[in-house]
Amino acid sequence: MSGAAAGDGEAPTIAFQGEHGAFSEEAAERWYGGPVRAVPCREFEAVAAAVRDGEVEYGLLPAENLIHGSVLPVYDLLTAGGLQIVDEVVHDIRLCLMGRPGTTLEAVTTVLSHPVALNQCGRFLAGHPAIHPVAFFDTAGAAREVADRDDPATAAIAPLGAARRYGLAPLVDSVGDRPDNQTRFFVVRRAGARGTGRPAPPPAPAQPCRAVLMVDAEHEPGALLRVLAPLGERGINLTRIESRPAPVAWSYYFFVEATAPSRTALEEAVAEIRVSADRVEVLGVIPA
Amino acid sequence: MSGAAAGDGEAPTIAFQGEHGAFSEEAAERWYGGPVRAVPCREFEAVAAAVRDGEVEYGLLPAENLIHGSVLPVYDLLTAGGLQIVDEVVHDIRLCLMGRPGTTLEAVTTVLSHPVALNQCGRFLAGHPAIHPVAFFDTAGAAREVADRDDPATAAIAPLGAARRYGLAPLVDSVGDRPDNQTRFFVVRRAGARGTGRPAPPPAPAQPCRAVLMVDAEHEPGALLRVLAPLGERGINLTRIESRPAPVAWSYYFFVEATAPSRTALEEAVAEIRVSADRVEVLGVIPA
Repeated sequence: MSGAAAGDGEAPTIAFQGEHGAFSEEAAERWYGGPVRAVPCREFEAVAAAVRDGEVEYGLLPAENLIHGSVLPVYDLLTAGGLQIVDEVVHDIRLCLMGRPGTTLEAVTTVLSHPVALNQCGRFLAGHPAIHPVAFFDTAGAAREVADRDDPATAAIAPLGAARRYGLAPLVDSVGDRPDNQTRFFVVRRAGARGTGRPAPPPAPAQPCRAVLMVDAEHEPGALLRVLAPLGERGINLTRIESRPAPVAWSYYFFVEATAPSRTALEEAVAEIRVSADRVEVLGVIPA
Repeated sequence: MSGAAAGDGEAPTIAFQGEHGAFSEEAAERWYGGPVRAVPCREFEAVAAAVRDGEVEYGLLPAENLIHGSVLPVYDLLTAGGLQIVDEVVHDIRLCLMGRPGTTLEAVTTVLSHPVALNQCGRFLAGHPAIHPVAFFDTAGAAREVADRDDPATAAIAPLGAARRYGLAPLVDSVGDRPDNQTRFFVVRRAGARGTGRPAPPPAPAQPCRAVLMVDAEHEPGALLRVLAPLGERGINLTRIESRPAPVAWSYYFFVEATAPSRTALEEAVAEIRVSADRVEVLGVIPA
């Protein structure tokens, strides 16, 4: 999370999945440190395509959530090629209850949100039995719907940014059972795109760095350990590993995140891994 | 997946998350090979509690889906103790469009389902622009709602079993973009519960087996590899590994699945891992 140098020219274009006001859009602004030209996309694939095709400078893709873990479809998109991870940003997932200006909590009888968000507000809803939860397609969209309806009894559970965006008033700042919930996002660019000073330039050979790798290994005893050994031997800390089921056969490949003492050490280890693995992809290298 | 010996007495009680007609209930019947006394629970925690407290003989918990990957809250529950994994079952996640008997596809203008299911039916919905998708809390619940409403224009996207359960007619057997989607479920019992002949007894010392482990290792270079090395040395194949973010600090612990040539080899390896790991839990051992 290097942050990015805001203020050196025009705001960048950043594609994100969701509607305006989504957590992803909030995270894009947090990463840039100011307003961005955020481009909403219906699906992760559309974010990736917008970046690959040069329609936007950056894409923001969720990698991992504290409650739900990895967002594997995003790792699949990164593996498919054409993108590079250039930075990451951790963003609070705080669920806010919001309604039309002038509404009070006592007046609310219906709350709209995505079922996954509503399920994370079990304690609040149990404590307010007069409020009837109704499923909606997404959280920011629920906020927009409340703004569109002329009904003070209908509220939304959505990111705080959606209240600003749609002119709603926060009624309760945080209604989630886990107010410490966070999502880690990758900032991606087109593979091979040249730096513009934003984000920080890639780490120099002697600099510590973090890397995201995809490794496909034989399914035989010890194969994965053999493939990963070159990391440990160079003092590279394997901070995260995740196997991804390959369709049909329930075989697996692996995503690995590691912190290396230098970019040179990382590159040497990757070269050695290549000898025994079926496939290795470096999805991104970020300053540590 | 040993299957279970149906027909040796009364159908077992099995807790599952969801409403009657859910994929989990279908999977429970597939595992047992016949009707079971399925006990619906609102949350995974309630499934675990029903098993731990002896209210039911078994619980069925989703471990992994081909599209979304691991269901980490389930692994957290297994780690919390009181449960053992005794078997597993892989079940097809086939999304079926269903309506009231006599309804035709042409008459349908509204379809209810969980947003995640609706998002997996993008191609079908794009090809049927007259059908308006509406978010609902869960798939089987959407089927029940359609059965309750006297409206031939409203259909549900739900498991086929929900059509049988609620007296609906399948209109299109498979409307998902990924008809090959599957979920792997763990069958759990109370820790220490004695065998009843169902499922297959735990593997004998000389028998090949599969195991699910939780390992907590130091976050220093090579620590995870050092912890896992005892597996490779005994010809134990590490089939799956997943790091689980620990709240607040974004540190990680690891879930490991492995296939061992014998139960003895597995137990020796676990004993050796205990020496260097902060914590090791054997969540289950299943015949291979």
